[in-house]
Amino acid sequence: MADTTKAKKRRRADPESSSSDQLQLPFKNRLKPDSVILESLHSLLKSTSSSSSTSSKPLTLSDLSLSSACREVTDLSLLSVQSAIESLILSLTHSILSGRGFSFNVPSRAATNQLYVPELDRIVLKDKNTLRPFANNSSVRKSTITAKILSLIHQLCLRSIHVTKRDLFYTDVKLFQDQTQSDAVLDDVSCMLGCTRSSLNVIAAEKGVVVGRLIFSDNGDMIDCTKMGMGGKAIPPNIDRVGDMQSDALFILLVEKDAAYIRLAEDRFYNRFPCIIVTAKGQPDVATRLFLRKMKMELKLPVLALVDSDPYGLKILSVYGCGSKNMSYDSANLTTPDIKWLGIRPSDLDKYKIPEQCRLPMTEQDIKTGKDLLEEDFVKKNPGWVEELSLMVKTKQKAEIQALSSFGFQYLSEVYLPLKLQQQDWL
Amino acid sequence: MADTTKAKKRRRADPESSSSDQLQLPFKNRLKPDSVILESLHSLLKSTSSSSSTSSKPLTLSDLSLSSACREVTDLSLLSVQSAIESLILSLTHSILSGRGFSFNVPSRAATNQLYVPELDRIVLKDKNTLRPFANNSSVRKSTITAKILSLIHQLCLRSIHVTKRDLFYTDVKLFQDQTQSDAVLDDVSCMLGCTRSSLNVIAAEKGVVVGRLIFSDNGDMIDCTKMGMGGKAIPPNIDRVGDMQSDALFILLVEKDAAYIRLAEDRFYNRFPCIIVTAKGQPDVATRLFLRKMKMELKLPVLALVDSDPYGLKILSVYGCGSKNMSYDSANLTTPDIKWLGIRPSDLDKYKIPEQCRLPMTEQDIKTGKDLLEEDFVKKNPGWVEELSLMVKTKQKAEIQALSSFGFQYLSEVYLPLKLQQQDWL
Repeated sequence: MADTTKAKKRRRADPESSSSDQLQLPFKNRLKPDSVILESLHSLLKSTSSSSSTSSKPLTLSDLSLSSACREVTDLSLLSVQSAIESLILSLTHSILSGRGFSFNVPSRAATNQLYVPELDRIVLKDKNTLRPFANNSSVRKSTITAKILSLIHQLCLRSIHVTKRDLFYTDVKLFQDQTQSDAVLDDVSCMLGCTRSSLNVIAAEKGVVVGRLIFSDNGDMIDCTKMGMGGKAIPPNIDRVGDMQSDALFILLVEKDAAYIRLAEDRFYNRFPCIIVTAKGQPDVATRLFLRKMKMELKLPVLALVDSDPYGLKILSVYGCGSKNMSYDSANLTTPDIKWLGIRPSDLDKYKIPEQCRLPMTEQDIKTGKDLLEEDFVKKNPGWVEELSLMVKTKQKAEIQALSSFGFQYLSEVYLPLKLQQQDWL
Repeated sequence: MADTTKAKKRRRADPESSSSDQLQLPFKNRLKPDSVILESLHSLLKSTSSSSSTSSKPLTLSDLSLSSACREVTDLSLLSVQSAIESLILSLTHSILSGRGFSFNVPSRAATNQLYVPELDRIVLKDKNTLRPFANNSSVRKSTITAKILSLIHQLCLRSIHVTKRDLFYTDVKLFQDQTQSDAVLDDVSCMLGCTRSSLNVIAAEKGVVVGRLIFSDNGDMIDCTKMGMGGKAIPPNIDRVGDMQSDALFILLVEKDAAYIRLAEDRFYNRFPCIIVTAKGQPDVATRLFLRKMKMELKLPVLALVDSDPYGLKILSVYGCGSKNMSYDSANLTTPDIKWLGIRPSDLDKYKIPEQCRLPMTEQDIKTGKDLLEEDFVKKNPGWVEELSLMVKTKQKAEIQALSSFGFQYLSEVYLPLKLQQQDWL
């Protein structure tokens, strides 16, 4: 009790002083003044943006002479989607009138038709197609569903509104039977028309939030993310109505989990080190992935990722970076290139002396997932990641971001992250 | 195809006209002009707020002479929490110095110690206490954990910061062993100190969003929820930094699910019928419950709930309205009185001619849950609810809000809700 009374007195005497009870925090004495850290971040940003301006245009499939062997979709305007559907239907009508009936020619999205392209650092779809004839017992249902989805998307184009996949399903439950069927055909339609799913105005529920040094427009409203309190701004589900991004940030901090996000938002970390803080609260959703990519592309800022030190954390990083197999046809629009792994890295556990009891033993499944990840191309191309992941699998230890709380609730924002930035300690 | 071409021509000829292809929508012809609906909503609001001003102070346990038999917690300032902890520790010290050792006197949160009070329409905690002595093999661990949690909360008071339950757990993993243990003692500490969990500055992750005719301050930033685009504003995790609520809304629309929220946000429904739209995206979380209650109390607006027509939808309504058993000690602060069940109600399925294939058969578990709900006090006190729920259990049919999409994507915002408001069709 003596201790707390003293602390209270101290605080009441000089509430503005930096709490001296934190001086004993491990590694706090290694921190240089903020101005020094900021200066090095500024020069880093200058070098990044100048190097990216020389090679500003990212590689595409056609640069690699792969555009005939692989396929990708692009963002199309509503009017282009509408025209594409109309031309498609017109050609089917010709086919019917000429007595040949009709078939949809659908790009295969099977695993055997997917390819990781190291130069692009993304998964893309190869060129195999499947015919879906109407006059065939085994495909009549699926081609009817395809026609229905095309007509629904056409309606969305005419009205210029957005709906969810669930809405789509409920327009004709009798035909679709269950939502997986309408969802799958929706992805087929994206590939057939060569456009992103967002271009079809079908959106996923939002769950991400953003806070910090970013101003952008959401459906015509200007949003200043430094004035969003602690709750932050919900990331809009429809990226096509997001625009006018402005920022004086030096980097984007991509956070895996809520709790760390809340800590940084309350401490207004973005005012000490100008940055944009974004989280999808766990597994990345499409809206957050699109938003992150748009920020990276328009603002040309480095992206630093703060995830748990476990195979799942690295997997999340890979979904942001290289895409998921499920939506590989859209990897160009959904992925953010060159995300840096800031922490918590397996080597941090010893480096920052995370207490043994805050580390967790990896389960058999964890270890298997870790070993599988070591075989993945996106890990292999980064020797630093291989080293860290090998260490994790060897020590069989994992840790959450929250493990840093064992040194005090604000250790993350007051010591760990500033030190990481000072040492430019990312891979 | 002929149909779509016609639609396109119509649209291009006069893009501003209200889409005439919707005239055939069921019940659309029953809609009166918006001005008529708005006028009736205005007079309803006037009568509600005048009646609530006569009996403005809600009933409390002491009004019912129950304050000695039941207990409730209240919001306390950080300084009061700090003082309460210090007095508690002081009395324990006296006890130790006088040679009697020490025990914590902890209110029981067991199911047998809970009571539904119909006059309050909430679950409250009865007055049974349990001693938690330190010098006892069976309780030494739990009393040590209790002391540790008290000391951590005391630190939060001194620093005036918020943390999550997960942060709390990680400060001493060796002692707590797993998070359920620190979480449970945290609730004990709330009850012991007689304050809400939010007063302890321990917060839950946020997941709700709000949009519409509301202005409020979040951690000092003024937020205008009409200017939050389609994404809306993320509801802050810490209600104590929310304030200055202003609104010209006529009602609060509480929506169970994301998809319906997105539809209403994109259509800016709140501009046609001034309202505040809020959703927790499924199961209500503490932050959204606190936010809803605060809106209701400060703005004195009726709350209309739009949930799925299934037992789960009604259960969600009941958590907002009467609280969960798990946190019954805090029901006064977490619950919003007098929530109206707007829809989708079981009787709506026939009334609005929801197609058979968009209704789902209830599972055995659904039917059991429905029957159990019929026995709950909060359902029984509302004869309208009993009737609807009995109909659901009898027909064995349920339906999601999304089922309305079978009449067109915007049926919810353009026909169903306006007609509900016009007919003041809520229970």
